[in-house]
Amino acid sequence: MTTGHVFIATSLDGFIARKDHALDWLPQEKIEGEDSGYEAFLSSVDGLIMGRGTFEKILTFGDWPYPKPVIVLSKTLRQDAIPDELEGKVRIFQLSPREIMKTLAKEGWTRVYVDGGQIVQSFLKEGLIDDIVVTLIPILIGEGIRLFGKTDGDVNLKLIASQAFPSSGMVQNHYKVF
Amino acid sequence: MTTGHVFIATSLDGFIARKDHALDWLPQEKIEGEDSGYEAFLSSVDGLIMGRGTFEKILTFGDWPYPKPVIVLSKTLRQDAIPDELEGKVRIFQLSPREIMKTLAKEGWTRVYVDGGQIVQSFLKEGLIDDIVVTLIPILIGEGIRLFGKTDGDVNLKLIASQAFPSSGMVQNHYKVF
Repeated sequence: MTTGHVFIATSLDGFIARKDHALDWLPQEKIEGEDSGYEAFLSSVDGLIMGRGTFEKILTFGDWPYPKPVIVLSKTLRQDAIPDELEGKVRIFQLSPREIMKTLAKEGWTRVYVDGGQIVQSFLKEGLIDDIVVTLIPILIGEGIRLFGKTDGDVNLKLIASQAFPSSGMVQNHYKVF
Repeated sequence: MTTGHVFIATSLDGFIARKDHALDWLPQEKIEGEDSGYEAFLSSVDGLIMGRGTFEKILTFGDWPYPKPVIVLSKTLRQDAIPDELEGKVRIFQLSPREIMKTLAKEGWTRVYVDGGQIVQSFLKEGLIDDIVVTLIPILIGEGIRLFGKTDGDVNLKLIASQAFPSSGMVQNHYKVF
């Protein structure tokens, strides 16, 4: 079965972005000797699933940052909304979390990077997230887009690893979902 | 000057209690060898400040848990609402965060334990919180009372210490507020 994996940074107050999706509050420079493990994580997945909001924000960055195939789940975006240079790199689907995971399983995907607040929440609700790596940034931004939302009851997690990065003040926690 | 200090547990999704103030999702038993540092912290303060919601919840616990004087900030509670057995242990004030800190400074208090979501938020806004110890519990509860709320702009924090408790899966992070 294809499993979903989350690797994401949040402010200490639980936001993954400001209301307008801005990420200016994230540490802007990589600190020597502090490896967040992002590259290794990205290498471990077959591709990414994200929602329209995250996708459209990433398009504004200019350079496309993903070396792996990206699936955008959207009810409104159409395939012809994808810029020419992303042809073959990005596909748009209008499927439920469960349906897209089945589709990707048929394509041979085993591990999927699930990204963005709403998408993470809907995959969590469906029990499709295997583990979550949350990197806590030492800042309060007060409002924005939350990583987590309402759940169907409590979701118990098991802490697999925790690592603090003293220079940047980030704390990265790795949880398994039950 | 009297400084405010926060020592609190939150679910991974940022709640300090369920909507009805319930804390049943917290680890119910202390695990051998896992010292959260609560006793040491409590010893380090002159007393506590909390809001009515937190105070009324604690009253339902039966045994009064605090060996230090408690201040309840409330616009509606009156001193005669305090049970007889808490006479001399609990005082009710209708003061702003800044005013109560001045009052306590005159009484010789140097360190105050600031507890409860709304009270923590209002003290943070006034720049009265010196540091925050947040213990992350490995659970998502979906909704409840948040530790943090809107802020006046970003609040930068400095990570002072981080400790993981492998058996319970708690991660305790200690931040200095700027």
